[in-house]
Amino acid sequence: MGSTCDFLGRLGEIAGPAGLLTDMDAMAPHLVDWRGQFRGRADAVVRPRSTAEVAAIVRACGEFQAAIVPQGGNTGLAGGATPTPAGRQIVLALGRMNRVRDLDPLDNLLVAEAGCVLQTLQTAAVGAGRLLPLSFGAEGSAQIGGAIATNAGGVNVLRYGSTRQLVLGLEVVLPDGTVLERLGRLRKDNAGYDWKQVFIGSEGTLGIITAASLRLYPKPAQSQTAMVSVGSPGAALRLFERIDAELGEFLSSFELVSEAAYRVSLDHLPGASFPFSEGWVVLVELTAGSPDLPLGEVLEATLARAFEDGCALDAVIAQTVAQAQALWLVRESIADGERAAGVSVKHDVSVPISRIADLIAAVERGAPELFPGARPNIFGHVGDGNMHVNIILSPQQATDPTVAHRLNDYVHDLVAAEGGSITAEHGIGQYRRDELYKYKTVAELRLMEQFKQLLDPRNLMNPGKVIQVEPG
Amino acid sequence: MGSTCDFLGRLGEIAGPAGLLTDMDAMAPHLVDWRGQFRGRADAVVRPRSTAEVAAIVRACGEFQAAIVPQGGNTGLAGGATPTPAGRQIVLALGRMNRVRDLDPLDNLLVAEAGCVLQTLQTAAVGAGRLLPLSFGAEGSAQIGGAIATNAGGVNVLRYGSTRQLVLGLEVVLPDGTVLERLGRLRKDNAGYDWKQVFIGSEGTLGIITAASLRLYPKPAQSQTAMVSVGSPGAALRLFERIDAELGEFLSSFELVSEAAYRVSLDHLPGASFPFSEGWVVLVELTAGSPDLPLGEVLEATLARAFEDGCALDAVIAQTVAQAQALWLVRESIADGERAAGVSVKHDVSVPISRIADLIAAVERGAPELFPGARPNIFGHVGDGNMHVNIILSPQQATDPTVAHRLNDYVHDLVAAEGGSITAEHGIGQYRRDELYKYKTVAELRLMEQFKQLLDPRNLMNPGKVIQVEPG
Repeated sequence: MGSTCDFLGRLGEIAGPAGLLTDMDAMAPHLVDWRGQFRGRADAVVRPRSTAEVAAIVRACGEFQAAIVPQGGNTGLAGGATPTPAGRQIVLALGRMNRVRDLDPLDNLLVAEAGCVLQTLQTAAVGAGRLLPLSFGAEGSAQIGGAIATNAGGVNVLRYGSTRQLVLGLEVVLPDGTVLERLGRLRKDNAGYDWKQVFIGSEGTLGIITAASLRLYPKPAQSQTAMVSVGSPGAALRLFERIDAELGEFLSSFELVSEAAYRVSLDHLPGASFPFSEGWVVLVELTAGSPDLPLGEVLEATLARAFEDGCALDAVIAQTVAQAQALWLVRESIADGERAAGVSVKHDVSVPISRIADLIAAVERGAPELFPGARPNIFGHVGDGNMHVNIILSPQQATDPTVAHRLNDYVHDLVAAEGGSITAEHGIGQYRRDELYKYKTVAELRLMEQFKQLLDPRNLMNPGKVIQVEPG
Repeated sequence: MGSTCDFLGRLGEIAGPAGLLTDMDAMAPHLVDWRGQFRGRADAVVRPRSTAEVAAIVRACGEFQAAIVPQGGNTGLAGGATPTPAGRQIVLALGRMNRVRDLDPLDNLLVAEAGCVLQTLQTAAVGAGRLLPLSFGAEGSAQIGGAIATNAGGVNVLRYGSTRQLVLGLEVVLPDGTVLERLGRLRKDNAGYDWKQVFIGSEGTLGIITAASLRLYPKPAQSQTAMVSVGSPGAALRLFERIDAELGEFLSSFELVSEAAYRVSLDHLPGASFPFSEGWVVLVELTAGSPDLPLGEVLEATLARAFEDGCALDAVIAQTVAQAQALWLVRESIADGERAAGVSVKHDVSVPISRIADLIAAVERGAPELFPGARPNIFGHVGDGNMHVNIILSPQQATDPTVAHRLNDYVHDLVAAEGGSITAEHGIGQYRRDELYKYKTVAELRLMEQFKQLLDPRNLMNPGKVIQVEPG
């Protein structure tokens, strides 16, 4: 283990002066997550320009026994891209590796370096008449490498799957500096173990994703957006079953907003007009490639049947893009409304679709009983079974740090009892690492630790994240 | 390493008398693949009834240093389920583990044991108003465990993905006898490494899949089948691009039949009537969940535009189920027609979709030039880039075993030059194992060998398959 001075000298030789930040002010934004929940330290922030530079940096870190924290747009929600507070480590910021290496409309394929911003890639795809369906709130700054490393979800999972389903190939730098490359353009390939799957969703703990080939889709020619008033979460599930059966091939979003969350959103948008004064609400979006299809008519026919069988009470179908945006605003304003309503404890859980209504009922009944003054604020992606089970605390509860911890255990124990997951799309990072050990089986944890030990025996890749192995 | 007698005694205690075959006649069908290309030996064929029995058998095999060859319906095309000719080994036949553990229409979920026959599961799904989209020729005897172990493809990959995309969770017995179980019902779960991905497509070399939870879909309410005459493979690609853009959400099959393959099929069905007398032909199938959609009309509108831009010359849309079946018969008779036409060398390759026409042109020009008398017979799944590049040999060539070998190298080198794969859906098994080492990078092979070493350090799981590690 050489001196820090020698180490920084070596990094500077590899990445160049513009690629090495050691000044505290310059490093500061890289040492904290964007919500300010996790803070760490680093000897340097290194900004490589190429895969070869990444490999050389990884080898230098091995030689100097320095840990590496890969960082994309720093938009994660679990502290996965923030360094820990101690130890020799660098942040490897991939933002300068931002070339689109290929964009092929006929192959529906995009090959991008890890540091490309998601929105930039979406725009490039649209320019070629294609759709990169990966889309989520932070897309304006999130980078594709981080999205793959966390297997990011978002608003189009129901139709197109999570990030994993969009990755056709990867280029990865292993912890020993080896470059693995298969930026496949193939839809089907059964030649050997599909090793890329191991790196997708591993949150930078097994290697560094430097580039990816991604699957594109034709850009839809038309869409329909509807807001439907439903009597209860159970009715919402029955409506989902009907729409999935009759219009499943068009269905890109099916979002449930609880009565409480609808109220939270309405309270936050006092000037806006809303289709319904109160109640449980579902937002449905359909898209289609054909301009000839009477998509609005088939949606109306399906909703008519839903009115008959009682799973829908009333519905508004947007007639213009502006109306569609206004309907989406209700859903998108929940987060701001929740923030205005107080401090909240957030959960990104998934359960089997059939268990959503029971989970909601249990939390809405149980949380205020066990934590008097707490107000459940639940919404989410019904089609994915992914619910945001947030709980707004009373001003008094917000001053007691044990409340959040106990509420967290309460919600996650309920979710586990329903066969669910404590993180549907945000990942484990630092935030949920110890909780993971509560909800996974011993055999699963052992296998995960074996993968980590195999690929990163010195625990230099993003230590302290996902797996309980402390920095060596 | 105890005596064989002791070993068989232990296996009999675990699996019971009906679960242990040692008689040569009873074992015979398990020791050869169904095409008769691979033959091996075994001390016994063991037929467990439960996951606990599988784990006990695996532990016994570890103790007696016996290799294990997992076998499902024995319908594989690469010798992956056939034992090698030497060494102490057993065939672990999973056919008695054939319970459907759960079938939930609202969760669109099926939990099945490895030995369930695919067609039985398809039928069970339909009985619940659901679709298990995995479908291929051998579905009447193939078992779901084998389909997952080989990441089987089939006719619906374009719409629903390969087997991997349908697997929500697995139960696996590791080579040390540990049972890993997460028969997840979740669409989204980012809690830790997604370990199931490692076992899907690993062809029984890393562990034994004993059960799986599978994703179902709503059963389509209507379908449309069309046969389209196209002038060339290039026109077929342009037609695919148009149909994918305009009707992509309905598109379940887009099969290309070359002029030669169409002729081979026609010659084999002398009494049948065909829509076109000759030429390059595409078979298109669309399905939709809504009974209200004018699916036939939008298909006609899209084909009308295709006629205008010249990528389609003529088309027939089936008006009845019987007509649709007659159109599919053309495609399905290619295999029998090929067999009637002589000995052929088969290749299950994939290339980027944009390279399909060039690959076909190269083979159709080059193969008869380099191997005078050889007749390319090409067909396949355009939407997946998966082409069956088969070459019918002249009677003289069929007597020279080096011809098949040289043709194989010729085709696979062309495919590799186009960025393709030497196996799109059949897998590596014994058949392509050594070829894999020619077309993968050193870094990829090393990582594969590391996974193998990690999970199966004694090389007892399906030795001689996929990976070049000889029996220990």
